Amino acid sequence: MLEKLTKARNLSKANNAIKRLISERGESNALSMADDVVNNYRKLAKDQYVSFFTYLFEKLHPQADAVLKAAQDFVADSSARNYIQLQKVVESPRQEFFRRLNRASQGTAAVVEMRRDLLQLLDKKPELAAVDFDLRHVLSSWFNPGFLKMHRVDWKSPAEVLEKLIKHEAVHAIDGWDDLRRRLQPDRRCFAFFHPQLPSEPLIFVEVALLPEIPTVITPLVDKKAEVVDQVSQFKVAVFYSISNCEPGLRGVSMGNFLIKRVAEQLHAEFPGIKTFVTLSPIPGFMDWVAAGGNLGAGVPADRLKPALKLARDTALAVLKLESQSWTERLAGGWHPDLASEKEKEALLTLASIYLGLASTGRDGNPVAKFHLGNGAKLHLINWAGDLSRKGLRQSAGLMVNYLYDLGSVEDNHERFANGEIVYSRAVGRLMAS
Amino acid sequence: MLEKLTKARNLSKANNAIKRLISERGESNALSMADDVVNNYRKLAKDQYVSFFTYLFEKLHPQADAVLKAAQDFVADSSARNYIQLQKVVESPRQEFFRRLNRASQGTAAVVEMRRDLLQLLDKKPELAAVDFDLRHVLSSWFNPGFLKMHRVDWKSPAEVLEKLIKHEAVHAIDGWDDLRRRLQPDRRCFAFFHPQLPSEPLIFVEVALLPEIPTVITPLVDKKAEVVDQVSQFKVAVFYSISNCEPGLRGVSMGNFLIKRVAEQLHAEFPGIKTFVTLSPIPGFMDWVAAGGNLGAGVPADRLKPALKLARDTALAVLKLESQSWTERLAGGWHPDLASEKEKEALLTLASIYLGLASTGRDGNPVAKFHLGNGAKLHLINWAGDLSRKGLRQSAGLMVNYLYDLGSVEDNHERFANGEIVYSRAVGRLMAS
Amino acid sequence: MLEKLTKARNLSKANNAIKRLISERGESNALSMADDVVNNYRKLAKDQYVSFFTYLFEKLHPQADAVLKAAQDFVADSSARNYIQLQKVVESPRQEFFRRLNRASQGTAAVVEMRRDLLQLLDKKPELAAVDFDLRHVLSSWFNPGFLKMHRVDWKSPAEVLEKLIKHEAVHAIDGWDDLRRRLQPDRRCFAFFHPQLPSEPLIFVEVALLPEIPTVITPLVDKKAEVVDQVSQFKVAVFYSISNCEPGLRGVSMGNFLIKRVAEQLHAEFPGIKTFVTLSPIPGFMDWVAAGGNLGAGVPADRLKPALKLARDTALAVLKLESQSWTERLAGGWHPDLASEKEKEALLTLASIYLGLASTGRDGNPVAKFHLGNGAKLHLINWAGDLSRKGLRQSAGLMVNYLYDLGSVEDNHERFANGEIVYSRAVGRLMAS
Amino acid sequence: MLEKLTKARNLSKANNAIKRLISERGESNALSMADDVVNNYRKLAKDQYVSFFTYLFEKLHPQADAVLKAAQDFVADSSARNYIQLQKVVESPRQEFFRRLNRASQGTAAVVEMRRDLLQLLDKKPELAAVDFDLRHVLSSWFNPGFLKMHRVDWKSPAEVLEKLIKHEAVHAIDGWDDLRRRLQPDRRCFAFFHPQLPSEPLIFVEVALLPEIPTVITPLVDKKAEVVDQVSQFKVAVFYSISNCEPGLRGVSMGNFLIKRVAEQLHAEFPGIKTFVTLSPIPGFMDWVAAGGNLGAGVPADRLKPALKLARDTALAVLKLESQSWTERLAGGWHPDLASEKEKEALLTLASIYLGLASTGRDGNPVAKFHLGNGAKLHLINWAGDLSRKGLRQSAGLMVNYLYDLGSVEDNHERFANGEIVYSRAVGRLMAS
Repeated sequence: MLEKLTKARNLSKANNAIKRLISERGESNALSMADDVVNNYRKLAKDQYVSFFTYLFEKLHPQADAVLKAAQDFVADSSARNYIQLQKVVESPRQEFFRRLNRASQGTAAVVEMRRDLLQLLDKKPELAAVDFDLRHVLSSWFNPGFLKMHRVDWKSPAEVLEKLIKHEAVHAIDGWDDLRRRLQPDRRCFAFFHPQLPSEPLIFVEVALLPEIPTVITPLVDKKAEVVDQVSQFKVAVFYSISNCEPGLRGVSMGNFLIKRVAEQLHAEFPGIKTFVTLSPIPGFMDWVAAGGNLGAGVPADRLKPALKLARDTALAVLKLESQSWTERLAGGWHPDLASEKEKEALLTLASIYLGLASTGRDGNPVAKFHLGNGAKLHLINWAGDLSRKGLRQSAGLMVNYLYDLGSVEDNHERFANGEIVYSRAVGRLMAS
Repeated sequence: MLEKLTKARNLSKANNAIKRLISERGESNALSMADDVVNNYRKLAKDQYVSFFTYLFEKLHPQADAVLKAAQDFVADSSARNYIQLQKVVESPRQEFFRRLNRASQGTAAVVEMRRDLLQLLDKKPELAAVDFDLRHVLSSWFNPGFLKMHRVDWKSPAEVLEKLIKHEAVHAIDGWDDLRRRLQPDRRCFAFFHPQLPSEPLIFVEVALLPEIPTVITPLVDKKAEVVDQVSQFKVAVFYSISNCEPGLRGVSMGNFLIKRVAEQLHAEFPGIKTFVTLSPIPGFMDWVAAGGNLGAGVPADRLKPALKLARDTALAVLKLESQSWTERLAGGWHPDLASEKEKEALLTLASIYLGLASTGRDGNPVAKFHLGNGAKLHLINWAGDLSRKGLRQSAGLMVNYLYDLGSVEDNHERFANGEIVYSRAVGRLMAS
Repeated sequence: MLEKLTKARNLSKANNAIKRLISERGESNALSMADDVVNNYRKLAKDQYVSFFTYLFEKLHPQADAVLKAAQDFVADSSARNYIQLQKVVESPRQEFFRRLNRASQGTAAVVEMRRDLLQLLDKKPELAAVDFDLRHVLSSWFNPGFLKMHRVDWKSPAEVLEKLIKHEAVHAIDGWDDLRRRLQPDRRCFAFFHPQLPSEPLIFVEVALLPEIPTVITPLVDKKAEVVDQVSQFKVAVFYSISNCEPGLRGVSMGNFLIKRVAEQLHAEFPGIKTFVTLSPIPGFMDWVAAGGNLGAGVPADRLKPALKLARDTALAVLKLESQSWTERLAGGWHPDLASEKEKEALLTLASIYLGLASTGRDGNPVAKFHLGNGAKLHLINWAGDLSRKGLRQSAGLMVNYLYDLGSVEDNHERFANGEIVYSRAVGRLMAS
Repeated sequence: MLEKLTKARNLSKANNAIKRLISERGESNALSMADDVVNNYRKLAKDQYVSFFTYLFEKLHPQADAVLKAAQDFVADSSARNYIQLQKVVESPRQEFFRRLNRASQGTAAVVEMRRDLLQLLDKKPELAAVDFDLRHVLSSWFNPGFLKMHRVDWKSPAEVLEKLIKHEAVHAIDGWDDLRRRLQPDRRCFAFFHPQLPSEPLIFVEVALLPEIPTVITPLVDKKAEVVDQVSQFKVAVFYSISNCEPGLRGVSMGNFLIKRVAEQLHAEFPGIKTFVTLSPIPGFMDWVAAGGNLGAGVPADRLKPALKLARDTALAVLKLESQSWTERLAGGWHPDLASEKEKEALLTLASIYLGLASTGRDGNPVAKFHLGNGAKLHLINWAGDLSRKGLRQSAGLMVNYLYDLGSVEDNHERFANGEIVYSRAVGRLMAS
């Protein structure tokens, strides 16, 4: 009962703090009012976040009639004067609110935190997408790649930074401090983006292996007992074997793309002998797609369904006969790449090439392929038996992919991808055609 | 002739670089395209800037019909979906262009530089105000006070920072390195805002004198031979005697207000004995206003012209008799505060109090008064014979002002000022009434 | 065979490198010759160190006859001229050799490393003590406390520094990174000395707990699950619960003494509420001394063996009856402080007070007591059941000691200790008298 | 009178502070006693320094009889034990005193300062050379080149560092901040040694010009209006045109030698195109030596006075006829290199080659030549009309010298110089022979 009262009072305090900060008084305040909002927000219970953000949605929305008036004037005369008036009435006061909030002593962190909380509400409260739009808009401006600092993370880095790598590595989990140390040895690199305002928070990081050649199998790269190679002359290829975001509140703020390219440039400058930049990536969703009959993609326009591809897919599916035994059953029965028939292997590789080739189509494309191909990488190689872990077998029958970053072609490739085209090597082309 | 061709080619290159950067290819480019725009811009002749910015104005403007459609939908239903659509079509592509430009290696500096150039064109090309609006919008977001670092500038600071103080000090010119050194001694302080991206550029700086009491005269504060006081126990008052912007490209981006308050907080923490924060400020424009008959301000609504004030003004003007001899002539004739009659002194002080009291009114208010009173300071004291320099006598008959920053009242004062009210001390009140 | 040849060649190369570095050519060399010595030394096998250091001993020794001549001149006339000549011929060329060695790129580290290796040879080759004397002499000069930087070590410190704490903690072993993190929380502190030349090497570190009162039991201080107290107002006592050297090559170079005092000063400045600085220390060797009959110390002059002390000791020993059952047997039989009789407890405490009171006597004193009392601390309290670990019961029947650092008395106490006097509290005095 | 008493009291306080610091109590003191010595020393009047240092000389001298005893033991048996005993009694307690003094908060600076003061007393009080010996001994150990950090000094450096360059430049005076800035532009470099303990004190600095070829004339190098060359490809030669000590208290502590070599190595790494490292140096004392008859050097052993050299000298002197008109008179009469006859020019160049060739001989050698040749440089070229300033004409008839640092030969050259040999180019050899 008492608790209920306290909660209600907290919410009302938070709303009042919002009101004050966005008022005239808030315009020139140094930071106390911004601090108030942050402190009051932090006292809210989780189930009060909806009310907090709904308040922002309802009370700080643009005035519809003023918007219409300004739009009509702008249509009549697109002059600077009308343009400016239009901008002023259309921008929601929420954006100014978030900018003022940023003046608080931990302001930037608080805004990021709020978005993290908000994102978890969107499923249930889709109208809060308006607030999310504003948050993402200011965050994209503040976390502009021009403001991010790329730093190498190594064994000299602060423990508080390193523990965040352990926590956030999403692709190949880091098994404690010894595993981490191995990944920071001279033949491994780790780079992260930092924002000047959050110096102990890696925002996104990429792990790199320096190798004599393009790898086809993941195990040696993440083996914490692997011998360290420290002869620089042996480094010919830089392999991005993992890239992870640390900050859910920055979802949708483009960073990975820029990080990979900046790392490639830096490694290129440090090791003139390294000329190849490539990933070794998983194919999440592949076997689910196969199991579902290898649908060529919702929203794929009719004219892209080339008959040849359809035929190749159907032939391959017929080889696998998943309708007689599901993939899970087959794995349970001991299926393993080493035991697969040549036909089965061929069928799986062909299907993977078709699946990845759909990356540029709407909702159904593989997200990893989308990310790298969208960045301007090329689909270079599909590797048989690249990941023999349980997870690897289940999601992609053990297949892994190399995406190739050729710095001279990434912009061109990116544009072709944006126009619906996939850039792939001859080897992959042959698979598609088989 | 050849030069003309080169110039034309440069402009066309610059425009193409804009086009590429804002295109799909530019979306994910790391920095080369942004670098291209910067480099091409720097090759333009000054008289080509108009063409460059006009290109931005014309080609990267929102689509009027799409704006109208979105506005109509929003009026019909202010849902999140319609809100987001509205924002997307209303935001001009220029803003995205500047955000991409920021990825260039010297991107932030280049954007600031472009605005500096643009501001000089606005008089002749008022329609470019639309471009300026966008520039100021992104710069305000990037130079949010939450991102600025306040650093003390002293004799340990890099020479390249210090020379910028010498160059940009706008109120009391710094006469070389020896003068500067005096202003950085233990009884003087200098603080500046820096942006993480521009670490050797002070953006705005304030000079402070630590004194035993509120000063009424400027000379001892800026005397480079003044003896240094290093007994902390003698510091009771912090005097902001000069505040200068270093970066014309950031005009209109609020910083001074936050700087003064942050400095006050820091000095308060460092010297618990300092309880008074005050300025010693000039009154530019005062004698011009007097000479023009002490008009009470264009745009001052009728009901604010209190008869008592009018009477006081007219009485004072009658004492001065400037219609019989202009201010310039009188100064040339040797006028000096020490020689003024008591009546003259009274008249000038009264007029100054009236003039400063008009600060909150529209266009005509005194800019220094507007700045400090708008920040929430109080009009504390008007000092006779505070600045006996030629400039001081000419612009304000030697008068200077103390504005008082009482940290506990600044937000309240700011709000009252925004509502058209001036907060002043009793002493100033008596002058107005006299 | 081949290996033998290689080894011999390596030794000869190392000796030649010594010769060159100490020659005229070596005087002005920048660093290549010094690098040569370091590199050649590192190629030696462990069993060749004796030869290396013996070479230094024999070839770089002062000339005896020149020494005598200079000494005779100095006795005849202690003039500056004779003084200087004396110094020149007496100083062994080894010292200049080590100073030149320090110019190598990793010179300081190499010299420290050499001493670490040398110390392990002294038992078998006592004449190498001459080389050790020179090494310690130059290292004491270089690692003068005036050159050491005290830094707080916390979770922001580089992992490479932190892992050295885990490795070198000698008193209460750190059980991995989670344990370490607990010891770096706000209610714990860790400070270390660093040398500018070895920035990632903590030389010696002390761990501190901030508590509301003087602790008598060690367990809660080193419990990695202990709740963190972060209310500064609760901190009244700073407890040095562990101090460890990281660098064996610096044995005998005074640092701990200065570290503890500097930490106390810094904590005093940071937390004015902390007025008590105290240790919670083990008593290694205590039960061995009891078992051996509580001998009052080889080399204790007769007049210090006060009859009262002897009597107290004998009475206490009689209570314990260790001649009938050894301490080990008793522990094996389940002896535990909680089960001890009041008499037994009294006897052990009395014996401990006598044992610790012997700290200032020659070879036999307890080293921990010697260290703290020699630093000027006071013997403050002996705690029953302070350390119930197996090791604690075995070495000191679970007793622990608080040594008190009263910053105002440490110099006085140090001098009294140097004159053979122990400074203790009344409580300890009563134990001695009981 | 009162002042006299105060002075006496100050001296007595200083002496007592010495006594306490060197006593047992001082052994483990953290820093208060050391601070006491520093503070009391700083209160002394200049004329009391003699008393202060005499106290150190008399009271902290080794015991002569103990020295003799230890020396006799050492002659009888040079064992480690006797060696250590010898070292202990021979080392003067002053050295330990200075080491303890170094623990004071500004200890290192204070010790350097004391030596600066002491050096000015040596002429009048030669027995204080013993104290100076000890000071130099500890300072040489502390300022070992292995501990010095070489930093580039540029326009980003703190003003407090830069003003020290202006103050201490001893060869080509820096005419204010604008002149300094020119010397820090991309085609000029400045490097200095710093000690970690004195981070804002450049100890010694060298100024470098990056040029396309070896310069023969100084003017363009130190012209503050000279155009800046920023094309790296044009840099072929690094010219050390000035080297200056900033710290008189470190006289005799070798640094310049190491600085020049480290700078050469760093420039070599940064600019692979720079292969030549050379000075452009003055010849102070040359015309004085000529005027005095070109004596071949006090202490030059007879067999080095080669008859050919004597003849060359006498012939050249005869050409100049300085006995008929002194050098000063001749300059006053308008003498200028451009007006000199070919014979005169030849005579002066020959005499300069002979004069510089005497650098390796005892007291009379040219100090600049001694420094560079002693460092292992080669006498490369003597330039006619290299320095037309008044000072240049007066001291060396306008001649300047290039000394060449060939990194591969410096150690060899150094050794030859130590053996009395000068390494010179063929061009210089021809001059000697002419």
